[in-house]
Order: sequence, then C-alpha cells, then structure tokens
Amino acid sequence: MNAPDPHAGEPFAERLALTRVPFPASCKAYIPGQLYADLRVPVRDITLTNGEQVSVYDSSGPYTDAQAVIDVRRGLASVRGGWIAGRGDVEHYAGRAPLAGDDGPKSADAARLAALRAEAAALQRPPLRAKAGANVTQMHYARRGIVTPEMEYVALRENGKREWMAQYLADTDREQRLRGNAMGADIPKTITPEFVRAEVARGRAIIPANINHPELEPMAIGRNFRVKINANIGNSAVTSSIEEEVEKLVWAIRWGADNVMDLSTGRNIHTTRDWIVRNAPVPIGTVPIYQALEKVGGVAEDLTWAIFRDTLIEQAEQGVDYFTIHAGLRLAHIQLTAGRRTGIVSRGGSIMAKWCMVHHRESFLYQHFEDICEIMKAYDVSFSLGDGLRPGCASDANDQAQFAELHTLGELTRLAWKHDVQTMIEGPGHVPMHMIEANMAEQLKTCHEAPFYTLGPLTIDIAPGYDHIASAIGAAMIGWMGTAMLCYVTPKEHLGLPNRDDVKQGIMAYKIAAHAADVAKGHPGARARDDALSQARFDFRWQDQFNLGLDPDTARDYHDQTLPKDAAKVAHFCSMCGPKFCSMKITREVRDFAAQRGLAETDAQTLGLELKAAEFQRHGGRLYVPVTPVG
Amino acid sequence: MNAPDPHAGEPFAERLALTRVPFPASCKAYIPGQLYADLRVPVRDITLTNGEQVSVYDSSGPYTDAQAVIDVRRGLASVRGGWIAGRGDVEHYAGRAPLAGDDGPKSADAARLAALRAEAAALQRPPLRAKAGANVTQMHYARRGIVTPEMEYVALRENGKREWMAQYLADTDREQRLRGNAMGADIPKTITPEFVRAEVARGRAIIPANINHPELEPMAIGRNFRVKINANIGNSAVTSSIEEEVEKLVWAIRWGADNVMDLSTGRNIHTTRDWIVRNAPVPIGTVPIYQALEKVGGVAEDLTWAIFRDTLIEQAEQGVDYFTIHAGLRLAHIQLTAGRRTGIVSRGGSIMAKWCMVHHRESFLYQHFEDICEIMKAYDVSFSLGDGLRPGCASDANDQAQFAELHTLGELTRLAWKHDVQTMIEGPGHVPMHMIEANMAEQLKTCHEAPFYTLGPLTIDIAPGYDHIASAIGAAMIGWMGTAMLCYVTPKEHLGLPNRDDVKQGIMAYKIAAHAADVAKGHPGARARDDALSQARFDFRWQDQFNLGLDPDTARDYHDQTLPKDAAKVAHFCSMCGPKFCSMKITREVRDFAAQRGLAETDAQTLGLELKAAEFQRHGGRLYVPVTPVG
Repeated sequence: MNAPDPHAGEPFAERLALTRVPFPASCKAYIPGQLYADLRVPVRDITLTNGEQVSVYDSSGPYTDAQAVIDVRRGLASVRGGWIAGRGDVEHYAGRAPLAGDDGPKSADAARLAALRAEAAALQRPPLRAKAGANVTQMHYARRGIVTPEMEYVALRENGKREWMAQYLADTDREQRLRGNAMGADIPKTITPEFVRAEVARGRAIIPANINHPELEPMAIGRNFRVKINANIGNSAVTSSIEEEVEKLVWAIRWGADNVMDLSTGRNIHTTRDWIVRNAPVPIGTVPIYQALEKVGGVAEDLTWAIFRDTLIEQAEQGVDYFTIHAGLRLAHIQLTAGRRTGIVSRGGSIMAKWCMVHHRESFLYQHFEDICEIMKAYDVSFSLGDGLRPGCASDANDQAQFAELHTLGELTRLAWKHDVQTMIEGPGHVPMHMIEANMAEQLKTCHEAPFYTLGPLTIDIAPGYDHIASAIGAAMIGWMGTAMLCYVTPKEHLGLPNRDDVKQGIMAYKIAAHAADVAKGHPGARARDDALSQARFDFRWQDQFNLGLDPDTARDYHDQTLPKDAAKVAHFCSMCGPKFCSMKITREVRDFAAQRGLAETDAQTLGLELKAAEFQRHGGRLYVPVTPVG
Repeated sequence: MNAPDPHAGEPFAERLALTRVPFPASCKAYIPGQLYADLRVPVRDITLTNGEQVSVYDSSGPYTDAQAVIDVRRGLASVRGGWIAGRGDVEHYAGRAPLAGDDGPKSADAARLAALRAEAAALQRPPLRAKAGANVTQMHYARRGIVTPEMEYVALRENGKREWMAQYLADTDREQRLRGNAMGADIPKTITPEFVRAEVARGRAIIPANINHPELEPMAIGRNFRVKINANIGNSAVTSSIEEEVEKLVWAIRWGADNVMDLSTGRNIHTTRDWIVRNAPVPIGTVPIYQALEKVGGVAEDLTWAIFRDTLIEQAEQGVDYFTIHAGLRLAHIQLTAGRRTGIVSRGGSIMAKWCMVHHRESFLYQHFEDICEIMKAYDVSFSLGDGLRPGCASDANDQAQFAELHTLGELTRLAWKHDVQTMIEGPGHVPMHMIEANMAEQLKTCHEAPFYTLGPLTIDIAPGYDHIASAIGAAMIGWMGTAMLCYVTPKEHLGLPNRDDVKQGIMAYKIAAHAADVAKGHPGARARDDALSQARFDFRWQDQFNLGLDPDTARDYHDQTLPKDAAKVAHFCSMCGPKFCSMKITREVRDFAAQRGLAETDAQTLGLELKAAEFQRHGGRLYVPVTPVG
C-alpha cells in the first residue's frame, strides 16, 4: 500500500486501456424502459460456475462495455440528449464568452495549455439553458406530476434485475429474522417511477442531471434508495495533470463511485473540467468558489458576487451537475469557531470566513442565494449546500458553530425548494461514534429530510494513513441512520494527494460502508449478493467467491499468494486451515452423516425442551444430559 | 497492498532486528508500583517538537526498549517470577514426559526438527503447578480480597501517565459536550488496584496469566478497561515456519496487539509454542483441540478425553495463558445448523460436531468441563469459551444454533466461576450492523457480564480482500457496546494466510476500532491523544502529527510521496490544498484579523439572539440580516 503508483509513468492511452477490461465472468447488460422505450439501464451480469447468474448495480458506464467505442478526446455518446430536447423547454445559445482567467493563473507552459485546449475543442458543444421563464429541474417536473425518463431510469436502476434474487425475496422466514432496521427510511420492495417522482417532488431525493450533461446515466441520491458514494478527484497547485484526472474518473467509477467531484484548484482548471464532464457517465460536482478564487489570484477578499456568478454560469454551461456552495456560513457564525481546536477546516468555509471578516459584511453567497437559485434552475444544477463549519477533529464535533450553520442550511433548503431547485446537505467530517446519531437527527429535523451527504465521518483522529478505515466506520453507521451519499476518504487524507491505488482503497472502504448500511436498513435485495457469495464460499466455488466480491482482482491475487495452483481454485479446502481442519468440509461430512443415519430429529426435540427448562440437572457431581447418558 | 512480503526471504535475525527499532521520537518509560515496589509498568513517551510529552499505552514489550538485551533463543527476562513464587502456593515438578507426537505428524525433515528442538532446549524450564489443594488463579486471589502485583500492574497500565493529560481531564466544559455514552460500562476516572481486584472477583474482567508464563506483562480484558485486540498467528499444514511465527509475534505486538493466539496446526507445533511463549510479553492463547487432532492423525472421531486432557497439561506447562475450548457445542445443537447457508465455520466447532455425530454422544468437552476446570486452576489458565456455532455469513447470524450455544456458555461460565477459573466468551463472526446490539445484549445477560471476545463481526460478506475493513466496522460498534477484546481480521481472511504486511493491516484496522470504541464509551483520557494529534495538525507540526499516529512510518511515507522535501515538514500548508487554499492557514489569519479589530463581540451576541428567534425576517423578497445591512 505504501508503494508508489506502479502506473505513474505510463502514457495515458495505455492506462485508460487498462481500466476498460471487463470484470471477470461479467457482462454488461441493459434493462429496457417501459414508460420510455429508449431507456437502456446498465447492470453487470456475473455468470457463476454453476450456471447461475447474479446481476449487480453498475456505475462504471460504457467503459466496461466491450461493445462501446470510446474516444476520450470526443467524449461519451449522449444518453439524455433526446429526452432533454423532447421536453421543449430548453434553447441553445452562444454561451458565455471564454475569459483569459478561466484556466487559472497564467501557465508557465502556455504552449502546453494551448495544445490541451486544442484537443479539448472537439469536446465543446453549444450550451443549453432553460427558455425564458422555464424551470428545467427534475424537482420542477416532479412537482407538476411528470415522470421523466430520468425518473424511470433511476427506478429500474435501483431495482436491478430481480429475477435472480426472486427466491431470496420470497424467503420470508429468513427475512423475518434478518429484516433490517430501516431507522425511519421507507424503502418499497419495488421502486416504481412514480415513487421516484414523489421522492424528488418532496425533496427527499435528488437526481443530479444538468441539461448540459447528456452523457449522464441518471442516478438518485436519497435515503429511500441505495446508499451512494462520492469520490473526489482534482489537481491542485502542487501536482497532477489533466490526463491523470480523467484516468482517475474512469478508475473511480470502475470500482463503484456513484458520483465524482472535481476539486481542481490549480492550472488548466476549465479545460480539465471539459475533459472530465464529457467523459463522465456519473454526476460531476464542483466547488465553484475554488475557481472563482483562482480568478482573483488567490486573494479571498477580492472575491465578488459578479466573479462568482460568472463562474457558476461557466460551469453550468459545461455540464456540472451539482455545486457545493457554502452559503450557510454567515458572518455571525465565525466567532463561534474561536474556541475550536482546529478552527475552520473547510476550504470553501475558510475562504468565505476570511471574506466576511475582512469586509465585515454578510456572505455574498447568503445574500445572493435566490439569485443563485435562478441560475441553478435554468440548467438543473443541484445544490450541495456546503458545511463550511464542519468540525475538523473530534474535539470540535457537534459544537455550536456546526449546528448554527446547519440551521441556516435548513433555511436555505426551503428557499431552494421555493424555486424547485434540487438540494442536498453536506455533513461532517470528524465525529466520534456516540455523537453520530445526533448529527443525523439534527439534519433530518433541520433540513426537512433533504438528502444528507457526509464526509466520513472519521470516528478518531489518531489514524493518519488509515483514515479511510477510521471514517468508513462512521460512514457505515451514518449511512444506516439515513445519510444518502457518503463522500469517500482515502488513506492519504490529511497527508497528501491520493494516487491511483489510494483512490481505489478509498472507494473500497466506502463501498463496504454503503453496502453495510443498505444491509442494515433492510434494502430489499441488498443482501442477496452476500448470500450468493457465502453460498459460493461454502460450496468451494472459489472463482465465484472472487467474482462476486467488490474487488475480484485482489481476492484472486491474495488467494494465489498462498495457493497459486489452478487446482487449488476448486479444492475443497484452503490455505488457512488445510484439508484436515476445514470446517466447511467437516460440516458437509456431518450433514451427510446425519442424512445417512436419519439422525437427530429426537435430538432437536429434546433440545427444545431443554432450552425451555433453561437449566441442567446434576447428579453426583457431573453433568447429567438426558439426550445421551454417558455410556 | 497486493505486493508480496518484501522481507519474505530475509534471515530471521535480520528481520527481528528490523522490528526492534524504537518508534520515532519515542522512549520507553516505566511507571513504578506503589503497593509493589518492583513493578515496572511500560509506557511509550512521545516527545513533541514543542517540548510537550505524550505518553501512550505500550504492548510492544522489551523489544522497543533500546536498553533491553534480548536473545530469542533464550527467551525474555522474567517479570512475574518473584510474585508467583512469593505467593507460596506453587511447586516445581518434573512435568509431563514429552511424547513423540507432540510436534505433530512425523516431519519429512527429521533433522530439521531435531535442530529446532535443540535450539529450543535453552528455552525450557521446569514447570510450576499449584500445590495440592491450592488454586492459583487471579480470580481466586481476588475473591479472597488479595490485590496481587498483577492487579496493581494492570491498574497502572490502564491509567498510564496522567500528568500530560491533566489539563484535558480537567476541561469539564468540553467534557460535558463530548462525554461518551458508556452503554452500561462503568469506568472510573482513575483505575485503582482495588477496582481491578473487584472486577476480577466479579468475573467482569480477566488477567490471563499462567504461572508458567513469567515473561508476561500483565493486562486486563474487561468492559471497564480499554478495549483490547488480539492478533492470530500460527503456521498451518500448508505453509510457514517457526522463525516466521516468532517474527510475527514481535511484529504484531509492536503495532499494538494486546494478545496473540497461536493457531498453529501443522508440524513442529509443540516446539513452535515454546519459542512463542518464551518470547511473548503478551498473553498467548491457543485452541488445544488443534494439537489434539494432530495427535490422532487428523481423524476427529479418534479424539478422546485422555488425549485432550494430556494436551491441556502439555500446553499449560508451556505457559499458555488461555485456552479456547468449544465446550458449549452440544450434540443436540448440531441439528440446529441444518438449515444454515454455511453450516459450522469454526474449526474447533466442526471437529467437535463431527465427533459428536459419529459417536452419537454428548461432547466430551462438555461432559468433562469440571475436570478441565481442575487443570485450569492449577496453572491459572483462563477459559476462552469458544463459539463453535458462530455464524459464517450474514444469513446465519443470530440464529437458534448460535444462541443455543451461547446459552450453554453462560451455564459453563457459572461452573468455571465455581472453581474460580477466569473466563471470557467468544463471539461472532458475521453479523450485519442492525443485529450487533442483540448479540451484545444476549451475551451480557446470558453470560453474566463475563468479558466478550468477538471476531469482528463482519458486517457484510462481499468484501473478500478487505474483510479487515468490513469487520472493523462491526468491531468498533460492538466494542462500544461492551465487547472487551476484539479478535482481528486481516485482508487475507477467507483467502489465504496473512503475511507480515497483512498482520499489520489487520492490527491497524483493529487499533482503530478499539480506540473508536474507547472514545465513544468515554474512557477517561482515551481522546487526549486525538486532541494532541489534532492540535499538532492545526499547528502544522507535521512530525508530531506523524509521531502521535498509530503508524508514524506510513503517515510520514504518505506525506513524502507528494511533498518529499524536509522543508515541507514545517510548511504551513500541504499538498492537498496548496498554500492559497489552506483552510487552517486562513483560519489563523481570520483569528489574527479578529483579534486586531476587536471584532465580533457584538456579532456573537446578535447571533445568540438570532438563534433564539430561530427564524429570519424577510423584507422585499430578500434576506434581511440585522447584523450587516446590505450596503
């Protein structure tokens, strides 16, 4: 894990080729729509060695479809173009004129930027916006009773192929014992397009889907859907390149990132975004204040509403699906951080705090919030209301500053909803286990069940190098309690920029957390994959065990390290116990033995009586067991 | 992480030398006893760059003490020898005569075994046992009101050096908000020797401490003490060697394993154990049925009470501190597993199930339980009552088989306590998050608060290759709820034998889980280390941040990957955000700015009023904010 990225020096094309390899024993399949015939909702079908098929949710986009022809210099094929045009409420327009500062500070290597821009030229399309007076958000349609193709897409995607898990779903006995504790969620057995519409209308779910991002495969974020995860990518002033960022995107969604945020802050920031959005089948989020700050040379107090507004439009035209906006951090909140151990740890939060303090004025984000809404609804960009005052350590968790801002975010949610703008709320951060539930409860109450989108939370502070684990614990718990999307943390958190392997490690930890949450909530069918894998384990179907896992490559590799021979992949034991000590093998022998002897009907009955009696009879100082008197 | 162990081919002596390097900026220190003057309780003092000192719990034994002279071929120096002899209730005796089968099946390389045995000869000592009629368990002393040196040792060790965290402990304001939720635990601010005695007397804690393991640095396992972790090592029929096992022990305790179980099942099993126990400053546990099975050539039905009893004595004489014994798996329970997805997954459980089925007789472990107690109390070996019917997948969690066995373990606990034998209870396994609490509640109730010792639990089944993470989630939660010791899971779980790096990865995940549990429970002082690290982070004391973490090497290495220069270790920014976007830097600027301007007293007051009003006033469609009217 400490090894440097082994692919760091490889050319982009070769690295991308690597990540297009389909998953082992897997095949991309598409579920057709019913309301909308042209829907093709992706799933991944895994064929097992016993002939069964397991079908799983698939965020990887066309990259894992062997049939898809992809040229990252042209971008992905349109999925939603027809649906958007078909609604008749958008128009093409010239778009904002590019400015010199759009790509950040002047590059030392202007020739290189020019080359990148030239390559990106093929990616650009004339932007769309809502016709005058129109509102093109999914929430707006939902509230008018319209089930959009995006909504049906989401419904089919959440359900997946139910055929293979039909037996599981019908097994009511086991379900009874294992039924999850939904913690207030209300997930129907089958998600209908109408259910999606109702959830979006109520604000309890969002479908991030900018009209300028037609390449998007729609997905939902809400507590009554599968828990989603977000991976952050992005260059910074210190390192990274455009090629690496697109590669990270493809790599991140391969392993299961449902959303990707581009947090670039350095050079070539506009052009990087063109590359990312045009090649992204998942929603892309950004923090526009990062780019706005670049435009004013990094001097926070020089920020203006005009520059920020221009940046919003710039990014909305490019197709960004949601914006993190720290509009809940108000001038009056700042003093509440004075006694904190680590002050303000959100980048956006600290920028706005500095602006407010220097000018001694209320945040322009807060004051122009409804102006921002006007932009959001013209492109269907969703709000991700930023938690600029999230705690940066356990010691600052759940303090007055954090909750004062959350309260303001609740107010802003209502304001966004007034404009039918889709909204989710960002959450911490650093929270010890015993304080997690209060966060969720406060968010649900204060923000009216708008989807919660948390970073971790990290449950302890002493694990630098392992914060993906320290935070996966908190993420699993808060996901169970109702958080709709979990923002990943990589092993490099607090230490450096994640490389390729760090991104994968972070995603794996968060796929685990999200799935653990789904299972605990009792999401219908979530546990069917666990059962299929465990059955394969018991049956010594090693290949199936690997292929049903979140990371077949690593599982297979680990097995190979001890028992590399192919024969061992069908062996009825493994390296941990060896053949003599294999409990699963012995269990089979026990079952066979019992079947032969017709044994133990009586034993089971007797045990029942015994348990009722709940105590043992003793005679002569030794245990007396009625079933089998000592011979 | 997928890379093979880079040290795999190195000679033993060199590898051991590696693991004796003291931790960076750290120094071993010893706290003296008060009741017993010769106590030297180890802690690790970390010196920070600002001159402060932080002192942490230290399980690594003399290996990290630069002053200690260690020859693994002679074993560690005695810690407890004088205390044991001083009680006057033990006697030396010839001990059991070695048998040909003690080292497992005949080695193909008899010369090698002979050489290993010859080397181990220097390790052997004449065994001790209780004098006729005596009972030498810590529980026996505790119940007679005796505070042993072991008990004072444990008290001092749990408290650590309180000086450095005095300010933290006195900070009642923060404590009020951050106080943990003890979930029924009752941890005093300061652990006294008398408190330890009372907990041991009541059976709520154990101090595993075989009289034949004088090298032991005593520690406690109980819900009112720090949550502990166990690491498993051991060869198997398929791979490994003695040298590797001792190396794994030293490596495991270096990173924080509080206990180590030797789960060897292959060749040279007796001699391996000599090497491990003689070099172990931590309690060593075993599963004696594994060796007993080797003695009967791996044929479960050939096991007898005589062979098992002989194995218990053999291992008790060697100094094993606790035995996992699956005495709760009764003949009548077996049928309860018939409908399971993965049957019986405990090795010991499956062996006993097979024995019971073939003979159609009650388990000899169950029937001879009081005979076993007689042996345990003659050496102070603790019971770790095994959960032979633990679930092997989510689908089998909390079923009738599991809880029937747990019920029997509760009965056996009472029986063990009748003999003053220290006892803990093993727990699952595979349990989804929403079913964890029922496990803890059932164990507390059924087993009368005897310490719970759980494996994970794994919260999902689909993460082969990452089961250390899938299980750390469950471990943190059940640790918070009351589990006293967490048995680690490595990334190789279900796939292969852990190598050196896997052992470390498993331990790190479990140190995180245990610490998260301590913090959530509100263990006094547990969070002081988090606060010290977070303060270092805010102050840009990078070296301190690394050195206060669980794994300074990895943290430093990760930081170096992006910003390798030494200068960056004192830089007031890092590679994630770069200098312009550093929130912590901006926070400092904000604070300085506020201090200069004498700002915001009024803001804070106004905010208070605002929050009370809990709503905003609106005028003319825009937000009206009384603090800062729009200019």
